[in-house]
Amino acid sequence: MAGLFLSLFALGISTALSAVLSPRQGSSAWRDKSLPAAQRADDLLPQLSWEEKIGQMGGIRQLLQPNATFNRTTWNTLYPLQHGILSYGSQLNQAQDVLPYANMVREEQLNSSKVPWISVTDSVNSIYVPGGTIFPATLSLSTSWNLSMYEQVVAAIRDENMALGTHWVLSPELDIAKEPRNGRVGEMYGEDVYLIGEFAAQYVRTMQGRDENGYIKVGTTIKHFLYGQGMGGVNTASMHGGVNHLYNDLAIPYIRVLKENPTAVMISYSSIDRTPMSTNTALIQGMLRSEMGFRGLIMSDAMGILHLYTESKVASSYKDAAVKALRAGLQLELAPGQPACFPFLVNSSNDQEIVNLVDEAVRQHLVIKFETGMFDLPLPTPENLNRTLRAPQHLEINRQASRDAIVLLSNDGFLPQANLTKIALIGPFGDILDPGSYAPSTAANPLHGQTLKDSLEVRFGSANIQYVKGVDIRSTSTNDTTGIEDAVAAAKNAGVAIVALGSLSVYFLDPITGQRTDGEFFSHASLGFPGSQQQLLDAVLDTGVPTILVLNGGQAFVLNNSTMRANAILHQFLGGEFSADALVEIITGQVNPSGKLTISMPQAEGAFPIYYDYLPSDNVGGAGGFNGCAGDWSYPCLDRDGAPMAFGYGLSYTTFDISEPQVLNSSGVSISCTVANTGDVVGKEVVQVYFRQQYSDIELPNKRLIRFEKIELQPGEARKVEFTIDKNDLGYYNNAKYQVDSGNYTFWVGSSSRMADLKNVTISL
Amino acid sequence: MAGLFLSLFALGISTALSAVLSPRQGSSAWRDKSLPAAQRADDLLPQLSWEEKIGQMGGIRQLLQPNATFNRTTWNTLYPLQHGILSYGSQLNQAQDVLPYANMVREEQLNSSKVPWISVTDSVNSIYVPGGTIFPATLSLSTSWNLSMYEQVVAAIRDENMALGTHWVLSPELDIAKEPRNGRVGEMYGEDVYLIGEFAAQYVRTMQGRDENGYIKVGTTIKHFLYGQGMGGVNTASMHGGVNHLYNDLAIPYIRVLKENPTAVMISYSSIDRTPMSTNTALIQGMLRSEMGFRGLIMSDAMGILHLYTESKVASSYKDAAVKALRAGLQLELAPGQPACFPFLVNSSNDQEIVNLVDEAVRQHLVIKFETGMFDLPLPTPENLNRTLRAPQHLEINRQASRDAIVLLSNDGFLPQANLTKIALIGPFGDILDPGSYAPSTAANPLHGQTLKDSLEVRFGSANIQYVKGVDIRSTSTNDTTGIEDAVAAAKNAGVAIVALGSLSVYFLDPITGQRTDGEFFSHASLGFPGSQQQLLDAVLDTGVPTILVLNGGQAFVLNNSTMRANAILHQFLGGEFSADALVEIITGQVNPSGKLTISMPQAEGAFPIYYDYLPSDNVGGAGGFNGCAGDWSYPCLDRDGAPMAFGYGLSYTTFDISEPQVLNSSGVSISCTVANTGDVVGKEVVQVYFRQQYSDIELPNKRLIRFEKIELQPGEARKVEFTIDKNDLGYYNNAKYQVDSGNYTFWVGSSSRMADLKNVTISL
Repeated sequence: MAGLFLSLFALGISTALSAVLSPRQGSSAWRDKSLPAAQRADDLLPQLSWEEKIGQMGGIRQLLQPNATFNRTTWNTLYPLQHGILSYGSQLNQAQDVLPYANMVREEQLNSSKVPWISVTDSVNSIYVPGGTIFPATLSLSTSWNLSMYEQVVAAIRDENMALGTHWVLSPELDIAKEPRNGRVGEMYGEDVYLIGEFAAQYVRTMQGRDENGYIKVGTTIKHFLYGQGMGGVNTASMHGGVNHLYNDLAIPYIRVLKENPTAVMISYSSIDRTPMSTNTALIQGMLRSEMGFRGLIMSDAMGILHLYTESKVASSYKDAAVKALRAGLQLELAPGQPACFPFLVNSSNDQEIVNLVDEAVRQHLVIKFETGMFDLPLPTPENLNRTLRAPQHLEINRQASRDAIVLLSNDGFLPQANLTKIALIGPFGDILDPGSYAPSTAANPLHGQTLKDSLEVRFGSANIQYVKGVDIRSTSTNDTTGIEDAVAAAKNAGVAIVALGSLSVYFLDPITGQRTDGEFFSHASLGFPGSQQQLLDAVLDTGVPTILVLNGGQAFVLNNSTMRANAILHQFLGGEFSADALVEIITGQVNPSGKLTISMPQAEGAFPIYYDYLPSDNVGGAGGFNGCAGDWSYPCLDRDGAPMAFGYGLSYTTFDISEPQVLNSSGVSISCTVANTGDVVGKEVVQVYFRQQYSDIELPNKRLIRFEKIELQPGEARKVEFTIDKNDLGYYNNAKYQVDSGNYTFWVGSSSRMADLKNVTISL
Repeated sequence: MAGLFLSLFALGISTALSAVLSPRQGSSAWRDKSLPAAQRADDLLPQLSWEEKIGQMGGIRQLLQPNATFNRTTWNTLYPLQHGILSYGSQLNQAQDVLPYANMVREEQLNSSKVPWISVTDSVNSIYVPGGTIFPATLSLSTSWNLSMYEQVVAAIRDENMALGTHWVLSPELDIAKEPRNGRVGEMYGEDVYLIGEFAAQYVRTMQGRDENGYIKVGTTIKHFLYGQGMGGVNTASMHGGVNHLYNDLAIPYIRVLKENPTAVMISYSSIDRTPMSTNTALIQGMLRSEMGFRGLIMSDAMGILHLYTESKVASSYKDAAVKALRAGLQLELAPGQPACFPFLVNSSNDQEIVNLVDEAVRQHLVIKFETGMFDLPLPTPENLNRTLRAPQHLEINRQASRDAIVLLSNDGFLPQANLTKIALIGPFGDILDPGSYAPSTAANPLHGQTLKDSLEVRFGSANIQYVKGVDIRSTSTNDTTGIEDAVAAAKNAGVAIVALGSLSVYFLDPITGQRTDGEFFSHASLGFPGSQQQLLDAVLDTGVPTILVLNGGQAFVLNNSTMRANAILHQFLGGEFSADALVEIITGQVNPSGKLTISMPQAEGAFPIYYDYLPSDNVGGAGGFNGCAGDWSYPCLDRDGAPMAFGYGLSYTTFDISEPQVLNSSGVSISCTVANTGDVVGKEVVQVYFRQQYSDIELPNKRLIRFEKIELQPGEARKVEFTIDKNDLGYYNNAKYQVDSGNYTFWVGSSSRMADLKNVTISL
């Protein structure tokens, strides 16, 4: 009773205070579509009850159960204090099944509340339920190094999201893929902060593009602030980072993408230097708000606030966790399970600090909902859904994406093979589609998309493809080698083998989830092929039959000396629905491969982290002849000049010559080079520009990417490419302050990050 | 000419300023042995020329060449500006050969300079040249968990050093052994900050103990400030650390050992958060000087200052590197090669800031030389050298050390075997002694010490030991398996096999240095056994012949399912000259093993870092059934409750029962438990106390060691052990400030860090 009194009393205070700020309480100005979103939000905010406000700061992530049924009892339990955001349910509910339920509950809320739901879902390489176009995953799209193509991909995903009523996505992911054991590398844009920033900026700009009425089409969430190399490769694990590391290694993509005004920032799970990010006031308020100037909404990752109490033990109760997260700056709790923490704030209406923080959070929510048209737009229709999902132009850009993304890692001249007739397709990835753990698809018999077996059969006729799985992805307890013997026989019989190996990343409800080894919740204690796949490959290679190796999975693999015997190696990472078709087009030479690695491939099991922009002092410490990479001992192979498959690397069926860089303008930085296709077929080259200053106040990477451009050239064609770089882009953060030094700067231009593939010029700036 | 004028002019200023501080210039008060060292130093300092001062800040590390010849030409080149410290030359020069040369140059200096040399050498498990007692290396001594035994070991090493004229050593090493790929783990005390602190404090206290005249016997150098987990396991590589990590994970041993007033601190190679430690003013001046209150001398590691220019490129010349290091606080340059950087300061006598810093540095040097009696003591004599090196009591404590240190990792009941007759000794470590890369010994045919083959032959008669090397340590290019076949035949013939495998850490001039895989300059890209050793072991185990596996090397190994088939596994890490004898005593049951791991053993190749005091949030992130350790995939096995060989673990031939802890005094922390030997033989148990507070302001490790005690019990004997802990020892550093919270604290008592081996009590403090 006292509690109720206090609660009502506090609510009175809150309302009274709000009234001071918003004299038009009770007005309906917020309904006026012609007013700016912020003004509408300010008008509406004081008209909401305390419970309505708390409810805005959470949501229901599970609209439906896996079988697409709606559990109203559970719903009613959660709804009172978690009605800000809505997502669909199982990743395997069909879009057409989901829409009626989503519309039903959205309509109910419109009738019972002033504030509508907004649908917020993940959207990594598709809408978050089946029925849409399934693109390659983020890592695979980054290997295209093709930003204009990527714009079209994002536009397609955006339009399909809107058709399903989703106006806010939990992408893009700005994490740095420098920890190859982390199972989420496939969701990332790779290891380089500049490349990540450019791709993610394209994503935000395209996804949020405004409609004819000025509404943001689909809001974006940049995540996970901050995250890099979690301890031991574990996704939610801690990092030790100091301020120079955080700014120069992790924050740069955020600084770039914040220029595009993303809707929200999601906070990472990590404890950074012992303070969990969900309560890390220094990094959220000091860095993200004050120094980076972010003005949008800040949200938790799923269960991130809960973990303050249950895992990190820096909070002593659910409510304490909620208060600590709120004070640090969190404004939305992503809570797929129960208990959620923010609902515990409902009893804090007498705490003016909390009231003020809640008001600010809810104001952010209202602005987003006004900005995205949630108050104004009609509910989506099944007709538009059917018209938009898998529209022909979406499928076409999807095909292009796979063609541009697949990376040719090695080729002894065997590829392309235009005249193959009979092929032995071998390996557990021969007849599945590995789309990533955030893709709404199944690996075996996917609703949309071809497996490599499908695509080869279409191209060569099913009679000419003998498929032998050989082994399972993960080890089995038996020592049954029948599959390997069958594979060897098939290879010998066909005279050519395509071996498809890798690491599986699928949704938890996938029928073959028991074979999973990659994706969220997984880490790689080994970077070799899981299970007995290496044994299978070795047996096929031992036959001497010409062999094309196709790698699958959102990760790097150690390719040992045996593996390198393959005549050609292609890596598709996490393919989209047409990646198998593109592989066949590449194998037969219809398409010339042009993808380039965006993560470096380690050369030995323990030889990581491996990335091209290492600090010079990370590359010393071995004595004379003891440097190198002898596999089972030794200095862990951080010497990139010896690393054959580094960032930026990828082969083509033609050859390119990239000239020495020329300085066009020595006062600023304007350099050019001439790129010539010196081979026989049309091809695409990614011209890459790296730089480093000679001396600096803190230790800087040996070099860093600063520009890139993908160009297509006809045989014999040459083209001059120009790069203009603002000197102000060449600085670094020294104890959180950006600094640009005068002095000598070296610029390298070439076809990969390997020194052997680069030519340089030094400029005094 | 202008330079000379300026130089003389500046020197004049310097002298004049110094004169103000030291009115007794030209006096001979500094010769008065009865005055305090600081007063003598203040008296002498102004009497030194600028060049003499610069010379004090460097030294000559290579008195002799490998063949014990003295190169006076080189010497004369270096001497003018590098005459502060002296070390012997090759690690393989004999002590008896070295002493005359050392005395010769020291005598020359005494005749030509006011300031004598001081001999400064490494001293990890012996004096730094052959002729002394060779103890097990640091890691092996830490596995004894026996601080009183360790005191005797250090006293022996100290006395042997003094006999050779060494009065300053570059030990102890306080680095944290949490990066199993680092080749220097064998030089460390293990992974735990408390254990490191206690052992290192014992080292400093014992080594520096004062003689009858009050002189410090042998000064110590705690190193490498700061160092923990260098990037990629590379010794000199960078770290990302933030302040909470630095204080709570790396600095704690320093804070403990500084209470013992070590002579010097050596700065690490690492760039920490992008600033190389040799120029890291924040950590040297802010943390080490101001906050930790260190008042002694600060020195570089070998070439550490040079690297500022040549590697990290935060200095633009040798001189710039010298100035930056000096400003950061470095006062002595360890420069084994040329060029050294501090000699470039000789032209800076007109820079008053540098003059003042040099004066302060030289004052530190003089204090050390006065404190250690270098101005007063006679030169060491060959007679005393011969009397002291390898004194019987040194050899006896050495035997005890090995007996206490060897760790029994697994035993199916096969050990002990009192009645063995015929034994097949197999493996590349069967007839070598692996002493560590800082030991002045050779692996094969060591001057002092037995190999396992030697010791077994002494015990069982050489006719009963069939030794088969089997394979080399490192892979050879041939596929010759003859050795493995011979090993299998020998095992079958003998009926019992002892297989000695591991990773070799020897000095660079060792005849088998080509087989080296461990020690400084090495990192382990794999934590399996180097080369074909696993294949050899598997073949022996496949025979079914009872097999004892003996591990060698200063590192952890992944022991796979095949390896675990061995009937017993012993790890000696880097053994001393009697470790093989102790192994035989343990195998036959004359000695009951009592060593306990001080580094956790990883369970899969990529499953690291692995240590018991992980943060709670490092242990989550795997989903449900996906936690665990399936070898070739998976979450990297950070779940210690499933880790069989964790910190603190080691088996005995008897069994112990450790009771629930009892709270003796609930106002402070005073707890006890009763330890009973419940088996049939006398044995030693290490009782370990761990603690954790329930909630905290920053994330704290799941538990941490706070006390330990090794006790010996007769069969059936029980003893109560009491532990008193000051509440003030239970705090943590929150943003560099020490904080002790009120609240619930849990204390665990038991026989290892594994939860299954611990019983707990919770106390509200």
